Amino acid sequence: MYPFLSKSYVYRMNKSFKLTLLTFLYLIANASQAQEIRWYSDGPEMMQALEGRGWEDIGFNRLPDSAENIVRLPVWNLSRQTTGLALRFTSDSPEIQVSYTPTSSRLEMPHMAATGVSGVDLYVKDGSGKLLWVRGNYKFGEKVTYQFQLDNESGIQKEFQLFLPLYNGLNGLEIGVPANKNFEFTPKRTEKPILVYGTSIAQGACASRPGMAWTNIVAREMNMPMINLAFSGNGRMEKEVIEYVSQIDPAIFILDCLPNLGPGAGFSSGDIKEKISYAVTTLRAKNPDTPILLTEHAGYSDGLVYKPRAEIYENLNSWLKESFALLNEQGVTGIYTLTKDEIGLGTEDFVDGTHPTDLGMSKYASAYAKKLKEILK
Amino acid sequence: MYPFLSKSYVYRMNKSFKLTLLTFLYLIANASQAQEIRWYSDGPEMMQALEGRGWEDIGFNRLPDSAENIVRLPVWNLSRQTTGLALRFTSDSPEIQVSYTPTSSRLEMPHMAATGVSGVDLYVKDGSGKLLWVRGNYKFGEKVTYQFQLDNESGIQKEFQLFLPLYNGLNGLEIGVPANKNFEFTPKRTEKPILVYGTSIAQGACASRPGMAWTNIVAREMNMPMINLAFSGNGRMEKEVIEYVSQIDPAIFILDCLPNLGPGAGFSSGDIKEKISYAVTTLRAKNPDTPILLTEHAGYSDGLVYKPRAEIYENLNSWLKESFALLNEQGVTGIYTLTKDEIGLGTEDFVDGTHPTDLGMSKYASAYAKKLKEILK
Repeated sequence: MYPFLSKSYVYRMNKSFKLTLLTFLYLIANASQAQEIRWYSDGPEMMQALEGRGWEDIGFNRLPDSAENIVRLPVWNLSRQTTGLALRFTSDSPEIQVSYTPTSSRLEMPHMAATGVSGVDLYVKDGSGKLLWVRGNYKFGEKVTYQFQLDNESGIQKEFQLFLPLYNGLNGLEIGVPANKNFEFTPKRTEKPILVYGTSIAQGACASRPGMAWTNIVAREMNMPMINLAFSGNGRMEKEVIEYVSQIDPAIFILDCLPNLGPGAGFSSGDIKEKISYAVTTLRAKNPDTPILLTEHAGYSDGLVYKPRAEIYENLNSWLKESFALLNEQGVTGIYTLTKDEIGLGTEDFVDGTHPTDLGMSKYASAYAKKLKEILK
Repeated sequence: MYPFLSKSYVYRMNKSFKLTLLTFLYLIANASQAQEIRWYSDGPEMMQALEGRGWEDIGFNRLPDSAENIVRLPVWNLSRQTTGLALRFTSDSPEIQVSYTPTSSRLEMPHMAATGVSGVDLYVKDGSGKLLWVRGNYKFGEKVTYQFQLDNESGIQKEFQLFLPLYNGLNGLEIGVPANKNFEFTPKRTEKPILVYGTSIAQGACASRPGMAWTNIVAREMNMPMINLAFSGNGRMEKEVIEYVSQIDPAIFILDCLPNLGPGAGFSSGDIKEKISYAVTTLRAKNPDTPILLTEHAGYSDGLVYKPRAEIYENLNSWLKESFALLNEQGVTGIYTLTKDEIGLGTEDFVDGTHPTDLGMSKYASAYAKKLKEILK
């Protein structure tokens, strides 16, 4: 069915029109059946094009096999989720299909829609190089399918970017276009990526769709590859993960872990300052010239009405400020901070007080893009 | 459990801390058990306070019983969903519980989280009269429960507003506070409300939570009651519904139905112009001095990459402009338009190309609030 004829439209039609439309759709369906779809599956060509990974041969994952017995189990499990992974390809097709099997049957969360948890987003480059969102008709189940539709009557070879699910993993991925259309994976970019080590927020909770996670917005805005090493509830700035982070040679390291170092995580202010110091000095030792950006806790939207919640982020942010000052005193250069005030989230930018919506993600992304442009200029 | 100690926090703790915390929680739990909760259920007092309804004695619904055999079945069914309904109350309690049984077990949609479809939102007035969001720990199931927590050590009597689910109905609603705390429903406001007749977007799709539907944002921003007669996929500007809309005496009528009058709905441009003309003249006849705001189609985010989608809203908006000009020529006064350009949604403001996210809702609300302030000044 054509994407602009949604189920709800069909539901809303009067009978005579419905009959005409059904005939029309029947004809289209027959035409489509005649139009064979050629599928491009997750063979070597796709996997070599896959961006957002710090290591080769790790499939649709974010940490290499060697990490399995080194990082804690929750970190390992979360590294099987595809947030930040993206495929680039060119095609002259006005219709693009995507089909995959999520690894988890938890397709959504109470505060995050299936389109964000388990969905994909397709963007296409316009004449000026800007990535524009393409609508897909989706179907969620054991298999997830998207049918994307866009103008391309003149059969121009267009550049696409497909963002993978934020909170699910993939068993198999196929991209399909009509057999008479061109399709080619774009080799992954060789320029240095932005690297983010963070929490649920940096993993993408609670964007409405993958393209709206702040990391992916920033990747588009900066026109750079992005490696997302954010682990929901488990971005604890821990040695085992810092070891893996330090193996990557990015354009910048972003450490955005404070929201997972609050009370309940069992860390004292001393522990947290030590973690920050250890992370920065370890990364700096292996990567002497790479900027390191330390991000403050962006706050909780109920901090204004419930002091115990405000105290959490106020304390964490003051400890980060102290750590930063100390590192500066120690002569560590090339370190920067992104403050809560610069991120500027307000009382309405969250779904649950902790996780930003697309509205909050958009503000997060603006603050990050501004800061990255300053640092990487 | 205290709201800031989420399950994921507990999961993340080291063992010794966990033990301490469990002891602590055990003590709190015992203290809580001792603290009896007094429940205020949906008796006459609550129902008399319930805002957002155009008629008395219609329960948690949006159309009166008399409409059942007059409006189409989908409109009737959607009128059983509680979007726009809100309860106001005062309490000196730092803890407020809410419990209800949704009428439908479809607690979420693929592109809209359960917190938006079936959740509630609590706001509290700060010193300056601004409504601030309060965080609640929620549990979704056959029963939905929220536990809200805020500062109130000094036991100040605070004013609250509770927004009900956007895409579900209610069988029973209870609000609970500790038995030693005050609680009182606030009589519904007698000033004229804003009335919206619209589609899924005005019903609230796809806000992340009830407070972020543009209608509810505008109600807070304007500090006015709001009656939401938006029916997802069924805001067709039809005579039977216009009859009910015209029974209300609001501060302003907002007609935001164009997104449900596109292709598939089976209406010609003539049909649509006739609908607009009929709606305006009918409302004007019964309400000679009430402003009427006609809203354009805010667009689809894939209109930039798929012309057939752009043509839908471009046509509808040009027909609305023609209808508006004609009504002006005919001497109808007090009519206004809110244009697509004024709403100003872009390629990233939607979840599925059609329905705004919180980011799009926020832009919708700003445009509406600006326009309403101009008209109602």
